Amino acid sequence: MVQGNESFEIYLKDDSQNPTFSFKDRASALVSAWAMENGISTLIAASTGNAGSSLAGICAAQHQKSIILIPAKAPLAKLTQIMMYGANIIPVNGTYDDAFDLSVEASRLFGFYNRNTAYNPLTIEGKKIVSFEIYNQLEFQVPDRVFVPTGDGVILSGVYKGFEEMLLLGITDRIPVIVAVQAAGSPNLVNNIDHQNFSITKSATIADSISVDVPKNFFMSAGFMKKYKGESVTVTDEEILQASVQLSGSAGIFAEPAAAAAFAGLLNFTRSDRIPHGSKNVVLLTGNGLKDLASVQSQIHLPAPVDPDILSLGQLIRTILSKNP
Amino acid sequence: MVQGNESFEIYLKDDSQNPTFSFKDRASALVSAWAMENGISTLIAASTGNAGSSLAGICAAQHQKSIILIPAKAPLAKLTQIMMYGANIIPVNGTYDDAFDLSVEASRLFGFYNRNTAYNPLTIEGKKIVSFEIYNQLEFQVPDRVFVPTGDGVILSGVYKGFEEMLLLGITDRIPVIVAVQAAGSPNLVNNIDHQNFSITKSATIADSISVDVPKNFFMSAGFMKKYKGESVTVTDEEILQASVQLSGSAGIFAEPAAAAAFAGLLNFTRSDRIPHGSKNVVLLTGNGLKDLASVQSQIHLPAPVDPDILSLGQLIRTILSKNP
Repeated sequence: MVQGNESFEIYLKDDSQNPTFSFKDRASALVSAWAMENGISTLIAASTGNAGSSLAGICAAQHQKSIILIPAKAPLAKLTQIMMYGANIIPVNGTYDDAFDLSVEASRLFGFYNRNTAYNPLTIEGKKIVSFEIYNQLEFQVPDRVFVPTGDGVILSGVYKGFEEMLLLGITDRIPVIVAVQAAGSPNLVNNIDHQNFSITKSATIADSISVDVPKNFFMSAGFMKKYKGESVTVTDEEILQASVQLSGSAGIFAEPAAAAAFAGLLNFTRSDRIPHGSKNVVLLTGNGLKDLASVQSQIHLPAPVDPDILSLGQLIRTILSKNP
Repeated sequence: MVQGNESFEIYLKDDSQNPTFSFKDRASALVSAWAMENGISTLIAASTGNAGSSLAGICAAQHQKSIILIPAKAPLAKLTQIMMYGANIIPVNGTYDDAFDLSVEASRLFGFYNRNTAYNPLTIEGKKIVSFEIYNQLEFQVPDRVFVPTGDGVILSGVYKGFEEMLLLGITDRIPVIVAVQAAGSPNLVNNIDHQNFSITKSATIADSISVDVPKNFFMSAGFMKKYKGESVTVTDEEILQASVQLSGSAGIFAEPAAAAAFAGLLNFTRSDRIPHGSKNVVLLTGNGLKDLASVQSQIHLPAPVDPDILSLGQLIRTILSKNP
């Protein structure tokens, strides 16, 4: 639980401490194991972010080769982790979609195993495990709501699949309300669920891990949302940044913007009184704040320095204490 | 174990997945608990790096107040994590030593609990636990060597204290050889152990977490080194960076330069044939590579982009595979 003053319970499910510091390791670990079991030594994916870092890191640990295709315009800083893990990184003169399609062709041509998100079905099988963990860690209770940061919809589908399997197996008796949280600057999954004609908003958000023009897992995740009466909310970049500060300061968990977005979704629901008294609410925190220090710079402010004597310092400390006794 | 081709065993003890992503959490957790037990609500420390982030993050999680004094010239990027955790950060017009001394005065004046490294004895009590964990995770065997990244000497003393306590309690029958690894650009602990007159080299290394002019835990750690015949090695920034690449690429663990330095120490020992056949060697990896992406930029090289067609890509992939079949 984050704070004591709410009338409901908040559980933070933190994946920032995974081997490569994001939720994506749940998928990569399974994909890597399948390749090994089937004698495939090289894995490939198109990704500029957490999926690429994750595949590269897991492959390094398992002594497998990885090839990561990226759009040539991706910023170098984002690729540091991928390259440090020794992946063969290949910039493509084109978009992410070009890199995605090429990686599929290359895996057919060379017999590589392809980890692309929303392409390899094992990614959802890896991701669904989080639902088993949530049920287990809540001491065999189904939570009332799970806030899920949403881009392509793969994590959303994974969370649903995990809870659905427990329901079908008779382990549980209900599915929690899953709340798909998208950035207001990239609302292309939640805005299309109820519409006949799919329309796309060009994405613009600091939450790059959930910034997606065409959600590649749309039909599966939208199907789950309709079947189980999922809810949704979009949050602005300002809400995401404020949520990030509140999350770090109240729980000591420094999350990347996409993960803070899920917490922003919960705060948004709280403000509009959409969370029932006494309910159990889980927030998926899918990535580490150290992955994106640039985005939060606007939220931190270094005070003016004090002189190195105890009188000056004492005065300042008294001011600080009086503001926050 | 990292690789299969050595004639000895390597065990990586990785603290990059701790709550604030460094070894320092072992100390902060205990300091925070002691303060809570003794009814002290505000903790203070002087730090520009992992100790400050760690205290701030643990205090946030425990709903305690933290005050972090820093030299005013510390780079803003290093302070992001501290500030995101909601610490009261106070820049001091002076050096780290000024900030250190002021924090001690302030804790006396206001009754704050002071976490300064090499000042609060509980930091060593927290850090010694790593030795118990190593013994436990090696299935109740004492390793032959432990490579410890070394700045002030507090982690070094903590590791020794843990193994010494197990020896004195009759749990184990020997102390491993502890190898103090320092940056060649900041060798102020290991270079002074055997000398009568203490001399200081002005520090200059990329491994900022072990960059120390006057090692504040010198006498205790040097005492342990003499008593138990510790060994030492200094590694250059170039060795550190190469070790970082090798570590990430072979084990999937992305470590900060100070942590990679410990692995560089092991590689250095390997090259000079100082590691016995069949021995068990532990490397302490004390911090997360995401904390310092700037330092490794020289080690990564983005190849030229390919055109988005399978013929161009196929040709490039064949070249990659032929180099590394």
